[in-house]
Amino acid sequence: MSSVKDIAEKLGLSVSTVSEVLKGSDVVDSETRQRVLDAALELEVSARHNTVHGSSCKICVFIENMGFEKIEQFGYEIIVGFRLAAAERGWEVDIVPISLNEKLDYVYDEYMRKNGYSGGFLLGFFLHSDFHRQLQDTRIPTVVLDNLILNPKVACVGVDNHQGVTSVVEHLASLGHSSIALMNGEGVSRVAQERYMGFKVGMNKCNLPLRKDLIAYGDFSSENTGLPVRSFIENGATAIVCASDYIAVGVLRELDLLDLRVPKDISVTGFDDIPIARYSSPPLTTVRQDRLSIGKCACLTLEQIMGGMAISRFLLSPGLIVRQSTGPVR
Amino acid sequence: MSSVKDIAEKLGLSVSTVSEVLKGSDVVDSETRQRVLDAALELEVSARHNTVHGSSCKICVFIENMGFEKIEQFGYEIIVGFRLAAAERGWEVDIVPISLNEKLDYVYDEYMRKNGYSGGFLLGFFLHSDFHRQLQDTRIPTVVLDNLILNPKVACVGVDNHQGVTSVVEHLASLGHSSIALMNGEGVSRVAQERYMGFKVGMNKCNLPLRKDLIAYGDFSSENTGLPVRSFIENGATAIVCASDYIAVGVLRELDLLDLRVPKDISVTGFDDIPIARYSSPPLTTVRQDRLSIGKCACLTLEQIMGGMAISRFLLSPGLIVRQSTGPVR
Repeated sequence: MSSVKDIAEKLGLSVSTVSEVLKGSDVVDSETRQRVLDAALELEVSARHNTVHGSSCKICVFIENMGFEKIEQFGYEIIVGFRLAAAERGWEVDIVPISLNEKLDYVYDEYMRKNGYSGGFLLGFFLHSDFHRQLQDTRIPTVVLDNLILNPKVACVGVDNHQGVTSVVEHLASLGHSSIALMNGEGVSRVAQERYMGFKVGMNKCNLPLRKDLIAYGDFSSENTGLPVRSFIENGATAIVCASDYIAVGVLRELDLLDLRVPKDISVTGFDDIPIARYSSPPLTTVRQDRLSIGKCACLTLEQIMGGMAISRFLLSPGLIVRQSTGPVR
Repeated sequence: MSSVKDIAEKLGLSVSTVSEVLKGSDVVDSETRQRVLDAALELEVSARHNTVHGSSCKICVFIENMGFEKIEQFGYEIIVGFRLAAAERGWEVDIVPISLNEKLDYVYDEYMRKNGYSGGFLLGFFLHSDFHRQLQDTRIPTVVLDNLILNPKVACVGVDNHQGVTSVVEHLASLGHSSIALMNGEGVSRVAQERYMGFKVGMNKCNLPLRKDLIAYGDFSSENTGLPVRSFIENGATAIVCASDYIAVGVLRELDLLDLRVPKDISVTGFDDIPIARYSSPPLTTVRQDRLSIGKCACLTLEQIMGGMAISRFLLSPGLIVRQSTGPVR
């Protein structure tokens, strides 16, 4: 394979001009740009980015706001996926836990540079607000799970939340349900917003009305589902779409207290397919996030950002897992 | 590096069980799954997918519904990016043009298999409806530009349209504009819908009202902008956000006919940053799509799907390019 230098020589241009064009930059005039691209195709010289390889590359994975149980249920496999993909590339990986309540006494960029990190991966259900602000201006290649930051150096990875909830609604509609409720997590969370949008689109696709009395916000845990569940039942819901498996487990408990049988009296769905989903009673119909792939995906995305590509979002396809918590409408 | 076989031997499991776990499949019970992942981490055995390498891999790039001018302005660099990334992987690439009006007399999967293609990349502003339907069920790894298909074998690549238009609105608001109009493309197109959503979110972020009398749909060309432009002016618009550079060029022409000066009397923005954007009068403030990177991204995504990953969307960060068509509100 030829090199950037060969193109430069062939066209009588500087190596840096050729590199700029192949990096996708627009500072070079159209005509020169066109000549470089034609030559690149002819010589099969690729737009090689300075992809970092070898043990000199060290990545920091921050785990934020996850208790031990959540790490085990959710975060563990993402980290395994990331570490395996990093090992393939010869990268070193440090895992650093951060508490949500801890005040950051350093600046993100400064911390990363001081410790020799080439990139970061931030894993947490919510982003520390100070961290969030800092990521808007960081120059360190960074990947965050499930959070959108408007900075070409920062990309989001995760599952397509929108698509996941839409497929759940379509599944319930196909079972004859029309009074479908949504028990969502915290309204300020981006994940909750996306899952709400997926719900709205799904209801719309199935020609079902979006009823305000069948939508509630709470948190992503299994607590605090009592009041909304009672209100959903009073308002005639025959199915409850939950924005997480934890929420669904709480909903199942409330329905049990009300002597309602799942799925005979009412259907319930979760989201995430964490290990508890298959051991709940009844086992949950839910949306699977392939956590190993999310981790691998995060590594791949980080590699591209470090190579100069500006990535906004890399989203995996969710999978609908039908278990026993959904059935035909009563 | 150790192999899948080493893990299987170490744990007394079959190679296929270990492979299933490392592929992210959930058919293996939790406890075994956990033991495999722990061993994989310890031995640094990665979840290697059967990534296709070598000249045996042949990819078909379909170019749909693009006239010669559009190919030159928009599609060319995407194809160059794709071909360069494919060459790096030793893949063969065929380019096949398809007309929108042509009736498909073969089934996509059948066509791909018969011709020995391992994957496809579909490039076109609209997807042929029959093609669209076929892609919902295809088992051939496929990447489409700017269109969402609900099938784990099919991924979407493109720029984050939503984010792009939001940044344009924020730019105009920072110049004092509050009566901002949107001249969109065809309402049925996914790109138009996403650009509308980005507009809505941008106006909302800037605390500006979304006015129905300042929103119009047409097509992505430079024709047919006359009526909406006149109506925008009558309704007091001081800036017009256009969903493409072609539309913006048409809008500039209409404003010229009305003797309005850009940006002194009214600001105009485009989207895409195709070559004509910098040569229009005045040069357009627009949203840049890095087309070389989109092509590379498509190749990378196809490689991952062929390796077994279920990808929904891979979106690049758009870049706001400020030129002379925007200025402070009059």
